Amino acid sequence: MYGVILAGGSGTRFWPLSREEYPKQLLKIFGNQTLIQVTLSRISSLIQTESCYVVTNPQQIEQIRLQLKELGGSALNYISEPERRNTAGAIGLAAINLRKADPEAVMVVLSADHFIRDEAAFHESLLKACRIAESGRLVTLGAKPTRPETAYGYIQCGAPLQACDDAHAVKRFIEKPEREQAEKYLADEKTLWNTGIFVWRADVILKEIEKYMPELHKGLQEVEAKIGTNSEDEALRQIYAGLPSVSIDYGVLERSEHLAVVQTDMGWEDVGSWNALDEVVPGDADGNIISGNVINIGCQNSTVYAEKRVVGVVGLENIVVADTEDATLVCSKDHAQDVKKVVENLKKQNGVAHLVHRTVYRHWGSYTVLEEGEGYKVKKLMVHPRSRLSLQMHHQRSEHWVVVEGEATVTVGESVYKIPVNQSTFVPMGVKHRLENATDVPLRLVEVQNGHYLGEDDIVRFEDDYDRLPKKVS
Amino acid sequence: MYGVILAGGSGTRFWPLSREEYPKQLLKIFGNQTLIQVTLSRISSLIQTESCYVVTNPQQIEQIRLQLKELGGSALNYISEPERRNTAGAIGLAAINLRKADPEAVMVVLSADHFIRDEAAFHESLLKACRIAESGRLVTLGAKPTRPETAYGYIQCGAPLQACDDAHAVKRFIEKPEREQAEKYLADEKTLWNTGIFVWRADVILKEIEKYMPELHKGLQEVEAKIGTNSEDEALRQIYAGLPSVSIDYGVLERSEHLAVVQTDMGWEDVGSWNALDEVVPGDADGNIISGNVINIGCQNSTVYAEKRVVGVVGLENIVVADTEDATLVCSKDHAQDVKKVVENLKKQNGVAHLVHRTVYRHWGSYTVLEEGEGYKVKKLMVHPRSRLSLQMHHQRSEHWVVVEGEATVTVGESVYKIPVNQSTFVPMGVKHRLENATDVPLRLVEVQNGHYLGEDDIVRFEDDYDRLPKKVS
Repeated sequence: MYGVILAGGSGTRFWPLSREEYPKQLLKIFGNQTLIQVTLSRISSLIQTESCYVVTNPQQIEQIRLQLKELGGSALNYISEPERRNTAGAIGLAAINLRKADPEAVMVVLSADHFIRDEAAFHESLLKACRIAESGRLVTLGAKPTRPETAYGYIQCGAPLQACDDAHAVKRFIEKPEREQAEKYLADEKTLWNTGIFVWRADVILKEIEKYMPELHKGLQEVEAKIGTNSEDEALRQIYAGLPSVSIDYGVLERSEHLAVVQTDMGWEDVGSWNALDEVVPGDADGNIISGNVINIGCQNSTVYAEKRVVGVVGLENIVVADTEDATLVCSKDHAQDVKKVVENLKKQNGVAHLVHRTVYRHWGSYTVLEEGEGYKVKKLMVHPRSRLSLQMHHQRSEHWVVVEGEATVTVGESVYKIPVNQSTFVPMGVKHRLENATDVPLRLVEVQNGHYLGEDDIVRFEDDYDRLPKKVS
Repeated sequence: MYGVILAGGSGTRFWPLSREEYPKQLLKIFGNQTLIQVTLSRISSLIQTESCYVVTNPQQIEQIRLQLKELGGSALNYISEPERRNTAGAIGLAAINLRKADPEAVMVVLSADHFIRDEAAFHESLLKACRIAESGRLVTLGAKPTRPETAYGYIQCGAPLQACDDAHAVKRFIEKPEREQAEKYLADEKTLWNTGIFVWRADVILKEIEKYMPELHKGLQEVEAKIGTNSEDEALRQIYAGLPSVSIDYGVLERSEHLAVVQTDMGWEDVGSWNALDEVVPGDADGNIISGNVINIGCQNSTVYAEKRVVGVVGLENIVVADTEDATLVCSKDHAQDVKKVVENLKKQNGVAHLVHRTVYRHWGSYTVLEEGEGYKVKKLMVHPRSRLSLQMHHQRSEHWVVVEGEATVTVGESVYKIPVNQSTFVPMGVKHRLENATDVPLRLVEVQNGHYLGEDDIVRFEDDYDRLPKKVS
């Protein structure tokens, strides 16, 4: 039994909390763990860490590694997709890796952004699904609807499977319905929410992909041939660029003849949009979910998230307010699915507010842009203990560093020296330099950049602890 | 004919655009001028600048002077109230000053936050009111209601005055009504909006204050005796502290027997709350008023103000969003009057978000706090050409200055030197220093403060161009 966690989504409907390079699965939406940490913890008693695979992409892999290491997940396997190819691509890529490791592997496919209230019921359903999957079925978990939800897909159950309670063949998959239709499904015992949690043998899903998505299957075979070779990364990049981007539901499940659904009552929710919070976070007496420095004057059934600034809310009903350091969302709950349209518009504007937060996390620590003006930029930097940035140089900017906490060890040109708190140094344009925290406590400093061009891409790296030097093409 | 502009309000219902120390009259709410600039411009063809008095307070007077100087208003007279004492106090203080200057002065009392669409009609009404005021009446302008407004007070007209069109005695003043009642007033030709624009002789209003507010009158007489003496400021401070805080409407007008109202149709609005914008700013096809970097997905009849950050709004109806650098408001238009409750709550929290903006304006320029952390603070400073801060010293902090535009002339201890762009300097704790812009272009710099206590009150001033040295008590 192997776990496959799909963690490549960009969570656009959760903007501005979620950003393309730091999406919702990396955030603590409820409780003390991030969504991806919760996802791994939830299966850890059932599946060994070394049997778990996380499918993600180069933008997120670094942070996911950091977060899962905290759970002792250093034995985890990572699969990095060069581009997003929807669930069929991600699942296919995981399946060929799994089949290579274990020809009889049964894979449990999980999303990194689900909420499950009853873990025991979840485990029970998974084990049941595994038994069915071993016989060659593609099994999906179906949750009993608790409301006429229009943001979820549904599954209509067929005949009961022999020798297994709560398991049925699948009559059909149903796309997100209109409200009226959703109410009918709620009343019908044979219609379940499609949770997107799947259990099947790696060889079986690959056979079905071969049958219904031959183009994808051909690409996956080419990738498979390169696994473990020197050219694996490069081949993956080239082949992936040509693959179709289709969901496993549409590409395979809606056509396959070997489906089964296991009915469960585990309190499942997809934390897809801001509205999902209403189902997973308890509200106050007026139905509000409020976090941060919020002054609430008579609001009802509203969600207000204040990251740093004070937020005053007056007389709101059924509204979501999310106020972050560089972007604010105000949305009627009835239109929560349309938040992704804001993100689409932002992309067209060519800015970065859809892509990154004001604070950007790196291996070595993080930086926050405090201010940008004509010819200058002010950043706050935090360097983890015993960490350092790359040895680098900028063609078009000089930098002033003022240490405000801890002690910096800096290299500027040929000199190496220490800067204690409340001291500063200057890095002229075009001079090699490096910033290091050689102590056991965090280092914080304020950086003032001067220059005509201050883009993050004006950087030449000479040495790097994190493998970020440009690759030499042989 | 003298103009008296009341400009001491704190505009709490316009938070967070309006702050106690930089309220709405100092802001460009519509058009290219700030509200107080519009107010002065509007009467400048009727009343000479040297006959105009601005009544305000020490927190605002500096900025009002700066703004009105731009209109060539250097001949204006300023009256600074040591504390707020509502309109009766402000009008009484103006009246004793006016009567001293001209015993037959007719004063036109204006608020600094009104919108008037038809200036010609306004002028005509003022001149009519002046003629009636000369005969000893207390005259108020009454505007024909155009909707059942519940945020305005009303005036019921009495018998027509002889020899003057559109002028009546006043039957009674009516407080802000409920909706149903407001609809009756709208239908009634004899009921008008109370604009709060008054015209009367200074000696007449003082006589009425004497009759109905003897305590206030006694205080004003004591102040009058000190006008022009050395102890004027000190006497004003002491006497004012004991004066009652009552509106002129409640204290005098509701009781006086010498009232008149001039009916006008000048397109008047009190820019009191966020809702007022709907009346004075044209909206888009969906009734939205949108300003700044806003992404609007299907909103209607909503007002969205984005100062700096991007603001995404989705599916809103009848909502006000005001997103400023350090505070955000989201308010149902039906509850726009309750915004002042947010401000009251903020005051209790002991923060500064009700008091000042993130950018604070001074004689010499402005500063913006970019970041505050344990033991440090980062500010952006702008110094006007040919201006300088005081010669000062801080007991508990040191400062790093990095020039990002222009050239600074700095005094640190006994040294005086220049810092060009992209250079920096350090001011140790306890050392006298001064920052000056001796050039003809703005100076911008980033200041990083270090220390255990970083309050604005840790400042010892030795020399100051703006009279901010502590007064010696003799």
